[in-house]
Amino acid sequence: MLINGVPGDRIDIHDRGLQYGDGIFRTLRIMQGLPRQWPRHYRKLKQDCAALGLACPEADLLADELRQLAATRPDGVAKIIITRGNSERGYTLPPSVVPNRILMISPPPDFSDKYRLHGVKVRVCDLRLSHQPRLAGVKHLNRLENVLAAMEWNDPEIAEGLLLDMEGNVTEGTRSNLFLVRNGELSTPDLSQCGVAGVQRERVLDWAVANDVACKVEQLSLADVLAADEVFLVNSVIGLWPVRQLQERVWQQHPVSLQIGKWLNNATD
Amino acid sequence: MLINGVPGDRIDIHDRGLQYGDGIFRTLRIMQGLPRQWPRHYRKLKQDCAALGLACPEADLLADELRQLAATRPDGVAKIIITRGNSERGYTLPPSVVPNRILMISPPPDFSDKYRLHGVKVRVCDLRLSHQPRLAGVKHLNRLENVLAAMEWNDPEIAEGLLLDMEGNVTEGTRSNLFLVRNGELSTPDLSQCGVAGVQRERVLDWAVANDVACKVEQLSLADVLAADEVFLVNSVIGLWPVRQLQERVWQQHPVSLQIGKWLNNATD
Repeated sequence: MLINGVPGDRIDIHDRGLQYGDGIFRTLRIMQGLPRQWPRHYRKLKQDCAALGLACPEADLLADELRQLAATRPDGVAKIIITRGNSERGYTLPPSVVPNRILMISPPPDFSDKYRLHGVKVRVCDLRLSHQPRLAGVKHLNRLENVLAAMEWNDPEIAEGLLLDMEGNVTEGTRSNLFLVRNGELSTPDLSQCGVAGVQRERVLDWAVANDVACKVEQLSLADVLAADEVFLVNSVIGLWPVRQLQERVWQQHPVSLQIGKWLNNATD
Repeated sequence: MLINGVPGDRIDIHDRGLQYGDGIFRTLRIMQGLPRQWPRHYRKLKQDCAALGLACPEADLLADELRQLAATRPDGVAKIIITRGNSERGYTLPPSVVPNRILMISPPPDFSDKYRLHGVKVRVCDLRLSHQPRLAGVKHLNRLENVLAAMEWNDPEIAEGLLLDMEGNVTEGTRSNLFLVRNGELSTPDLSQCGVAGVQRERVLDWAVANDVACKVEQLSLADVLAADEVFLVNSVIGLWPVRQLQERVWQQHPVSLQIGKWLNNATD
């Protein structure tokens, strides 16, 4: 682990990430000692910092620190946290606050290959996401909704929970973005009111453009999901999981999902 | 500072308070070496822990640790943070996670006596609070909305910002609860959809009952606030501040507010 470039695993309790969740983060895959899709991740990190008015560390600095961590674990998952920095009590920012950066690396997850090839069973969470356009799309540190949603089930057969917003629009998984395949076209939920816009979601949108496949970003209902030809989930750690079952609906075949999943795994963009 | 009872000022970066804002906190006044309204604060701490499914530390343990801190600074502000505890990457709780408790003490604020006696100027924040009934009222660590709202102004003449919700209901101050005085009765915003229900708000509600003054908990618009006979703000650090100015509206007299403020300062409940 590196904290502001120095090996360590502890931070000051005055850090505003702890005090208020005042910061952002990213999770990315390290393979063969290299971070996957680093330019995309850095671009998103910078956007998310800007959304909170945080100074984003330089790309070269973070890339160098990622390399140091990757040298210790060439196959793993890196997490980058940028917090506002330390301050005394109170929401108001001190006049000069310097962001803290925390880089962690952990072993790769041991998800079954079955998930990737044959799909996963998912459920609908009871928790509904709140609308906050000022924070929508941003991977910030205020993640209690995701935590509470993840606490709703402990059946190991269920790999992910779908989150609907207060108005019943399907928004995302607790830790993934969602796509539908319908009549050869893609759809993914609009995230202008809530949800996290991940890097793999962006890659799927780019894949669609490059392959001349329409992809709508729109409001989607649970009925839309259940009626889709295929449904899949993406994030930077899992890659792509087709959905095999949601409620009584079972999907046996996932041809488009598997094609996109293969591209996500292999493309070096 | 005490971390799980041990003097220190650093926590493990795996703490879920930092990772996700997965925890709650309270801020309370220490005077003459004693925490003010400790039974009420503990009761609220326990309620807030329950709202997140956190195990709340025992009252005696926290009271003892508060006493240790208060011995070093008999006049100050204590902050208690209870986080879910440490875990590896991922929203899902590990099977056995032990909460971390962090106790901090800082100097008392140096707010002018004018604020308390003659009132403060407040503004309306642009940020609108999102509706999340699962977290409404709870003083949890997901406080980015408060941080962003507090970033909206830096005029030292403005002591607080009012927060409206997405539907335009006035909900609270960025760090205080709000009351109106109208025709000798009190009103305070309903906090079932958003906002933090503080201990001083509860005390004012109890004062109203004890003094046979009606106090409605209801939806309030900005027009309601501007038309009120008196407006005041409360929290455990400031006590009570009458509002002297909001937009073009100026309040010169605050008889009911001052009476309640005096009681809040002196009562030992």
